[in-house]
Amino acid sequence: MIHNFSKNGKGILVKYASMSFEVIKEDLGSAARLGRLTTAHGVVETPVFMDVGTLGSVKALEPRDLKELKAQVVLGNTYHLLLRPGPEIIAAAGGLHSFMRWDGPILTDSGGFQVFSLAKRRTFTEEGCRFNSHIDGHEFFLGPKESMAMQRVLGSDIAMVFDECLPYPCDRARAEASVERSIRWARRSKEEPHAPGQQVFGIVQGGVYDDIRRHCAESLVEIGFDGYAVGGVSVGEPEKYMYQAVDASVPFLPKDRPRYVMGLGVMRQMVECVARGVDMFDCVIPTRIARHGTAITRKGNVAIKAAKWAFDQGPVEEGCTCYCCRNFSRSYVRHLLACGEILGLRLLTIHNVWALNRFMEDMRKSIADGTFGAFREEYSKIV
Amino acid sequence: MIHNFSKNGKGILVKYASMSFEVIKEDLGSAARLGRLTTAHGVVETPVFMDVGTLGSVKALEPRDLKELKAQVVLGNTYHLLLRPGPEIIAAAGGLHSFMRWDGPILTDSGGFQVFSLAKRRTFTEEGCRFNSHIDGHEFFLGPKESMAMQRVLGSDIAMVFDECLPYPCDRARAEASVERSIRWARRSKEEPHAPGQQVFGIVQGGVYDDIRRHCAESLVEIGFDGYAVGGVSVGEPEKYMYQAVDASVPFLPKDRPRYVMGLGVMRQMVECVARGVDMFDCVIPTRIARHGTAITRKGNVAIKAAKWAFDQGPVEEGCTCYCCRNFSRSYVRHLLACGEILGLRLLTIHNVWALNRFMEDMRKSIADGTFGAFREEYSKIV
Repeated sequence: MIHNFSKNGKGILVKYASMSFEVIKEDLGSAARLGRLTTAHGVVETPVFMDVGTLGSVKALEPRDLKELKAQVVLGNTYHLLLRPGPEIIAAAGGLHSFMRWDGPILTDSGGFQVFSLAKRRTFTEEGCRFNSHIDGHEFFLGPKESMAMQRVLGSDIAMVFDECLPYPCDRARAEASVERSIRWARRSKEEPHAPGQQVFGIVQGGVYDDIRRHCAESLVEIGFDGYAVGGVSVGEPEKYMYQAVDASVPFLPKDRPRYVMGLGVMRQMVECVARGVDMFDCVIPTRIARHGTAITRKGNVAIKAAKWAFDQGPVEEGCTCYCCRNFSRSYVRHLLACGEILGLRLLTIHNVWALNRFMEDMRKSIADGTFGAFREEYSKIV
Repeated sequence: MIHNFSKNGKGILVKYASMSFEVIKEDLGSAARLGRLTTAHGVVETPVFMDVGTLGSVKALEPRDLKELKAQVVLGNTYHLLLRPGPEIIAAAGGLHSFMRWDGPILTDSGGFQVFSLAKRRTFTEEGCRFNSHIDGHEFFLGPKESMAMQRVLGSDIAMVFDECLPYPCDRARAEASVERSIRWARRSKEEPHAPGQQVFGIVQGGVYDDIRRHCAESLVEIGFDGYAVGGVSVGEPEKYMYQAVDASVPFLPKDRPRYVMGLGVMRQMVECVARGVDMFDCVIPTRIARHGTAITRKGNVAIKAAKWAFDQGPVEEGCTCYCCRNFSRSYVRHLLACGEILGLRLLTIHNVWALNRFMEDMRKSIADGTFGAFREEYSKIV
């Protein structure tokens, strides 16, 4: 169902479209594109940054805060929610949307990344991975079948296939074998039953090996998914390998499907990935660094906890319109952080989530009005 | 300026009135009364529960939350704010109201209680108390002069005199000597300069000795204050001694001034004190027990963290209209608390602050419509 600048049902010009995704505009100087992803819980304007709600809450924020901060998608972590509170309790609530009272779109990951990064004593078989909880050592098993079953219980709008996330560095033989298995798991993930209206995204793995990534991407496209992610980045590799992984994957993915780089939340990196044709991102960065006293600003990160702000009556970020910046001084927020007051990290969380959502909104505007090149140039300097 | 059922400027019938306080109605079956306390930052309906914002924030709440939760007065702690961030930083912001962005009334304590309960290596002299910070051991000095100077910087609407809080138990000789000095400190506290529009309240001490409390009350009234507190309760004494302290103090305080029992936040105890003619309370209970997973309800405290709520789809309190109860299940809040999620303690804080403010509102209504006796009876059973 690929159109060439046809109009959709709402009269919006569409360049490419699949069942759930429309590309409205493509940038002339890069592969950046403006899109609309339709989910069972609403439309998502892309490029989009998704806020991570690991355990069923974007840390320190309420659903009404997320609406105020123009959050579009909340990400739930299958691994974390499997361990606590477990599928029975979420099923009793009727799924994650009603459990956490978020009526917008939810994307759930498959647990593959957390099995790799958090779980203890992993044993991989063709069926999946047996591991022990990083919380209490309790034994669990996650494979494509179990992951999709859990994501079905969560009732997310977008489910991710279960895959193995490769470490960096990783030798070629291991990468080849792992990717073949991840492709088999992707097929089985697709074949499992899904929640009503639930889309399923494949994940391109392959480490730093371009040909393996290409093979993975082409195999996934052959199976056919609603969207495609680039996985196995942000695992400690140098930044250039991250872009290399994107460059080795995106060209082999269909233009009418959303593309998602997992675990990325640095402004400079996101703008570079958007320039390479990526539509979606997620990361714990805005909420995690807020809890450590760091603010995201247009000019880079600022340690608000620093003593130099003790008397500063200005807002966390000049010109910012979030609740924190409209009302409170750096002096006050710094004081709260220095005392470990919950309000301090909440105010910075509000600011940081707003800062990244505002950043994506500005980026979408720049694609819409043909100034993405300048936007990319501006953020390439931000460390 | 005592009237007998005259009308005030707004046409409200007033039974007793001083410059800043009006008694609008007295209960027939007890000493309970309905009042209006006018401060430089607005009118306070009494009886009132004041929310404690120790370090310049009611823990986990924003000023907009406090408005939504109908909080009337925020209490700031002179001792805590002296240690962190210190008077210079608050002075730079122009006082506590603008530092924390709370435009309603603020009451500040004198630090006397924290010197007693928190400070290390105390040395008392006629001038005050030298002590070491419980945070970093830094040495400070607080006496009537220093406390009033700090409260002047804070710019609170109501300042408390600097006094010595006696422990329980305390022998008579020590109580007598301490109270004489506290009376001298009260006089000096009154004589110090105050912030514009700042009222000053005296504090009745005397431990469990009725005649010492009476002597203290009468001495303070002779000096003359805008309001009077009963101090030295909630220091570990049996409940009956708390009521005894109130009974030994309140009858000797003027009817046209507000009366405040410090450090009390248990519903049953507050209703008993209101029945004895008390108008004001404060306590960390609602915010502190929220952080420990306990909800305040009309039927008593409920440990929401308990496993029995794991699947419960009902709200924290049936019939409650707070944001937490309107939206979330016990199952969800319990899950958040069990995982140590900030949102869990924030949601319970919202509920608990609302629960006590609602309780005081209901109590005021019961005095207004002549049903306080039944209200008192109902809450006498709540443990």
